[in-house]
Amino acid sequence: MSPTVGVIGGGQLARMMVPAAINLGIEIRVLAETTGESADIAVTTLGDYRDPAVVLAFAKEVDAVTFDHEHVPQAVLKALVEAGVSVQPGPDALLYAQDKLLMRERLSALGLPVPDWARVSTVADVDAFLADHGGRAVLKTPRGGYDGKGVRIVSSGADASDWFEAGDDLLIEELVSFSRELAQLVARRPSGELALWPIVETIQRDGVCAEVIAPAPDSAGKLADVAADIATTIAETLGVTGVLAVELFQTTDDRLLINELAMRPHNTGHWSMDGATTGQFEQHLRAVLDLPLGATGCRDEWSVMVNVLGGPLAGTLADRYSLALAAQPTVKFHNYGKDPRPGRKVGHVTAGGEDLDDVVYRARAAAAFFEN
Amino acid sequence: MSPTVGVIGGGQLARMMVPAAINLGIEIRVLAETTGESADIAVTTLGDYRDPAVVLAFAKEVDAVTFDHEHVPQAVLKALVEAGVSVQPGPDALLYAQDKLLMRERLSALGLPVPDWARVSTVADVDAFLADHGGRAVLKTPRGGYDGKGVRIVSSGADASDWFEAGDDLLIEELVSFSRELAQLVARRPSGELALWPIVETIQRDGVCAEVIAPAPDSAGKLADVAADIATTIAETLGVTGVLAVELFQTTDDRLLINELAMRPHNTGHWSMDGATTGQFEQHLRAVLDLPLGATGCRDEWSVMVNVLGGPLAGTLADRYSLALAAQPTVKFHNYGKDPRPGRKVGHVTAGGEDLDDVVYRARAAAAFFEN
Repeated sequence: MSPTVGVIGGGQLARMMVPAAINLGIEIRVLAETTGESADIAVTTLGDYRDPAVVLAFAKEVDAVTFDHEHVPQAVLKALVEAGVSVQPGPDALLYAQDKLLMRERLSALGLPVPDWARVSTVADVDAFLADHGGRAVLKTPRGGYDGKGVRIVSSGADASDWFEAGDDLLIEELVSFSRELAQLVARRPSGELALWPIVETIQRDGVCAEVIAPAPDSAGKLADVAADIATTIAETLGVTGVLAVELFQTTDDRLLINELAMRPHNTGHWSMDGATTGQFEQHLRAVLDLPLGATGCRDEWSVMVNVLGGPLAGTLADRYSLALAAQPTVKFHNYGKDPRPGRKVGHVTAGGEDLDDVVYRARAAAAFFEN
Repeated sequence: MSPTVGVIGGGQLARMMVPAAINLGIEIRVLAETTGESADIAVTTLGDYRDPAVVLAFAKEVDAVTFDHEHVPQAVLKALVEAGVSVQPGPDALLYAQDKLLMRERLSALGLPVPDWARVSTVADVDAFLADHGGRAVLKTPRGGYDGKGVRIVSSGADASDWFEAGDDLLIEELVSFSRELAQLVARRPSGELALWPIVETIQRDGVCAEVIAPAPDSAGKLADVAADIATTIAETLGVTGVLAVELFQTTDDRLLINELAMRPHNTGHWSMDGATTGQFEQHLRAVLDLPLGATGCRDEWSVMVNVLGGPLAGTLADRYSLALAAQPTVKFHNYGKDPRPGRKVGHVTAGGEDLDDVVYRARAAAAFFEN
């Protein structure tokens, strides 16, 4: 019998687990919401991840349950655990990737470096925080945000009033003065083994990850050590299993502050599929099945990943292959099999090599063939 | 619409096309003989590849047809071509991978280096060849042999008599005095582009590929150039498309002689999945869809692939993962999802690095966990 992993959610993260699973002889089953999702190349069940009966029936056919997204309600997760299902990461860890207010509270209690933040319930709370933080701040909905959604810059309490209408508390944070953004990814098994990839630099555009450079330039030494300590502390203290992504700000005065957490393979780890000995999707599968982790060293001096977003013109990525593949024979192309709606993540490319300028050029040039 | 490749045959070669296809956003459909084959992770149709109606119906749903094995009858292949199907490689090329007598005749006519050989129809023919070649020779059935099957060493015509009972001519070849075996793999598109991987050394055990070292030690220069010329000439002259594997003997007096041809991804190319910028399965898909080929350089100074054969003990590869993956965290494991019957190819492992002794050690050590 092949070990079987059930993935809740049918997006590109579930899809990219499949090649790694095939190589290792692991079966992937996906619980997706609709047909035609990115991961429907795997054995797919259609159903609502908010319905405990649906999720329980799905989970009983697999050895471990993991996630393509972080939206499965705690009540459903707890019902799985009570039924004896191996849920990786478990609800007690996933909680802190689901709710940014709880995450900030927990990380602050652990003494980990985070931006100044506050829980705000009223427009007056927002104004009070703004008065103490230079008149501008970042307002976030605690739940459901991603890729820049659920995040807004505010300069008065009035800017927040519509979001308070839902009746929930919001998270407000100082506008961090940062020189760049970084990400530290780590994988951890239920039995405790942990493996860190090198820290990477991430370049965001419109709140969405656009490019990743691995390893982050000028990160060797103190910076990498601090990031590794932060990610290790979070993974071990919160009991995270599978891949944990810790998004970080490097401040203009060279501190590291924790921005966001994700407890699943993450866009900032896609480079590792081609650029590390063990890619994040293979490692995630090993981790959630409590199998020994693979080596995480870089295969190239530099790897650069560039996201491909759907552009204004019609057509699929494959329509551009005759030009793109010919122009960049060393670049690895990843096509998520999605309709390329404008702004939607539909693929990524990764280049590797010894000269960073050249690697960046090749990755950007390859991605540019798909941009419009 | 995703480009779609139809693969005839459901073994591990079809299976290993799937991860590459997922990355490129290519759909794979497989025509398999029975359920539960290695490639049934892809969309699978069950049917007999010898039945033209079955194969035509399968082929009409795909953009190109290619192969997991070389056993599809010429009449079926020609019916596909007549129906306008893109068959890669086409019947006129595949013929020479299907019939070793025709292959020897054609390569000899091209002036390419082959062992001394003859077409034999009778026991007396065998005795005559033996008299001219030191009393021992290799007898082969022209069709259907693989992994040492259909090959026998003979020292008298009587040794051949049972194979003549089928009424077909046989191929007899001199027993080549060789220092080692090599393989040169190349991929070629219908429109002519061609890309060679580095020449590799192959170590056979009981007629089955056991290990591959890439690149072949001490091969740079003349040896690599001659092998590249041979493979290029064969691919271009025979009009091969997709991956072509040319198995070679390096004779004790340092000539290269062509042993066998395969027109599909080949066991001697498995190292390239992890060890080359573009692996053979990705390249095969690009080639059969007439897409630009990827770069074929080595990602590591040395790559060593070791086959995993089913052993005498029960259990699957995955049962040994807790020991094997822990012991060899840098090795890439490939599990074909097959029942591990003794002697059956059920997986392979690949190690890479700078020190060949160390790379060989790690690959062998990883494979050893599955051997019994």
